[in-house]
Amino acid sequence: MSDEVRHIAVADLQRFISRCFVAAGIEPAPADTVAALMAEADAFGSDGHGVFRLPQYVQRIRDGGINTRPHIEILRETTAMALVEGDNALGHLVMHFAAQLAIRKAREHGIAWVGTRYSNHAGPAGLYARMPLAEDMIGLYLAVGSANHLPPWGGTEMLLSTNPIAAAIPALEEDPIVLDMATTVAAYGKVKTKAQRGEPLPEGWMIDREGQPLTDPQRANDGFLLPIGGAKGYGLSLVFGLLAGTLNGAAFGRDVVDFNADSHTVTNTGQAMLAISLQAFGDPLAFKRSVDGIVRDMRASPKLPGVDEIRLPGERSWKIHRERTAEGVPLNAALLQRLEQLANELGVDGPV
Amino acid sequence: MSDEVRHIAVADLQRFISRCFVAAGIEPAPADTVAALMAEADAFGSDGHGVFRLPQYVQRIRDGGINTRPHIEILRETTAMALVEGDNALGHLVMHFAAQLAIRKAREHGIAWVGTRYSNHAGPAGLYARMPLAEDMIGLYLAVGSANHLPPWGGTEMLLSTNPIAAAIPALEEDPIVLDMATTVAAYGKVKTKAQRGEPLPEGWMIDREGQPLTDPQRANDGFLLPIGGAKGYGLSLVFGLLAGTLNGAAFGRDVVDFNADSHTVTNTGQAMLAISLQAFGDPLAFKRSVDGIVRDMRASPKLPGVDEIRLPGERSWKIHRERTAEGVPLNAALLQRLEQLANELGVDGPV
Repeated sequence: MSDEVRHIAVADLQRFISRCFVAAGIEPAPADTVAALMAEADAFGSDGHGVFRLPQYVQRIRDGGINTRPHIEILRETTAMALVEGDNALGHLVMHFAAQLAIRKAREHGIAWVGTRYSNHAGPAGLYARMPLAEDMIGLYLAVGSANHLPPWGGTEMLLSTNPIAAAIPALEEDPIVLDMATTVAAYGKVKTKAQRGEPLPEGWMIDREGQPLTDPQRANDGFLLPIGGAKGYGLSLVFGLLAGTLNGAAFGRDVVDFNADSHTVTNTGQAMLAISLQAFGDPLAFKRSVDGIVRDMRASPKLPGVDEIRLPGERSWKIHRERTAEGVPLNAALLQRLEQLANELGVDGPV
Repeated sequence: MSDEVRHIAVADLQRFISRCFVAAGIEPAPADTVAALMAEADAFGSDGHGVFRLPQYVQRIRDGGINTRPHIEILRETTAMALVEGDNALGHLVMHFAAQLAIRKAREHGIAWVGTRYSNHAGPAGLYARMPLAEDMIGLYLAVGSANHLPPWGGTEMLLSTNPIAAAIPALEEDPIVLDMATTVAAYGKVKTKAQRGEPLPEGWMIDREGQPLTDPQRANDGFLLPIGGAKGYGLSLVFGLLAGTLNGAAFGRDVVDFNADSHTVTNTGQAMLAISLQAFGDPLAFKRSVDGIVRDMRASPKLPGVDEIRLPGERSWKIHRERTAEGVPLNAALLQRLEQLANELGVDGPV
């Protein structure tokens, strides 16, 4: 297999994704919405959560695991919260709806919390946390992961997922701070990327059922991910799962469908989104200036021996975003081949 | 020094704390509110955050670092959020006000977020996260820690604190799930408890300025705490600090006053509280039944070799609470001696 990497413009990537979805039966407007978010994921460097997932999403559509004509709607709401019924749409559509709703409510009421049920895998958490930034809002996002890879602390049954949290916080001249993290040492998407690239897993990402380190990504099914901070990461995964899943009547724990292994069962994925308007708390400009100051204090502070630079959460993703906006998204040979094959199957033009 | 441990009834502990505060100049009603919360902290096993802190709080009052006649008020509010001015009161009073306000707003609007400024150290995070439980609400609490003990990831300047998160989630027959965790491997309160007990620190809690493990709690000032999950814990501490501090116009980063070293400067501590009403999202009974099921699934799931039991976050604290409610709070000889000395200084009856 060639190691060659091809670059594709973000807009071209979006168009490719969109035509694949349309060919798979999604209507053009929602196909475009999902494609824009997936291409944005790649543009920000979320290599395990962008176009890499397209073949899997298309497979799920073909196998009847996605509703291609969904009616996404508000099930319950107050001034500052809502529960959104996703009607088993592609997760990006449900979360796009939920995030826009949270922003609209936060504009009026200072803050808003919106939960989703009957959603699906929606790509990287950062996509949705970043949405309120343009409105001078802080975004927070929680999700139940789309497959269980984490046992409770001390256990061996995978009852929990990587249940991520993302937070995006506006700055003035500096890039916004964007934390986007799994509650496990590594997200499962990163394991999949390693497998796809044929690279070993760093020790500490996974252990096997005897508690021994697992470093061969092809053996990922023989073990499970490790939570950050031991029992603490387990606690965070559990709490985020209850907030993003159980609270919304969405799946959590033993009910979670492994969307990697099963492409036809309704997943009933749950997510939650919080938008906080800076305006409600004071002067947005003063807040953003303070964030700039904190960012600069961190970055300029003294370093441990051997450390080159102190980074802020999201710093790397903004840098990648600038690079890829200019130079396009790099697709490795294996991924490119897989996407060309998909295009052939769907009877549409390939990505490049 | 004797190793003897004396038990004191929770109600007696509360009365002791209250009379110390009154003797130090706090009015009786607020003194009682703070005392009840501090005794509750001890009853739940937060040994580093209950009566253990009393001498320090009293010292701060004597040194003019606490406003003994505060006017705690709402600075800004919408239907679902508020910003509370703590007027440099004891932190427990500010957070008691903020939590009650969040609960009241969540009763009407489904959710509420309340931030504080010019607050102070308020004891363990779990105290406030648990408050909404009785109303069938989920509680979330974030705080800026009262001294910086954590550098940014890769750095050596302590610009961050242990900035904790607590979450309390109602169950039906099972104990509520209560996660109460620092974003560092260990909270600084635990380091203080180890120092006070003359016990070494486990490796992994702290490193020194060369990056070497630090295990002597008497040398705590020569090093700093480690975040959970490396860069991830740093990111969580940063984000929680921005949400609980900067957003409220409270101190964060370089502005944080080390309340262990300085007992007279106004700390401008910030906290944030979120209350979520189960009723807004659906049937509270169904939710709590689901939580019971998840708790039981976790607990009964298979264990790694050598593991005795799988616990839920907060499980230990509920067990301790039952024990201490029945048998009293154990005070070791060193702490008891310190409290008796304090009572003497204040001219009030001792704790036992």
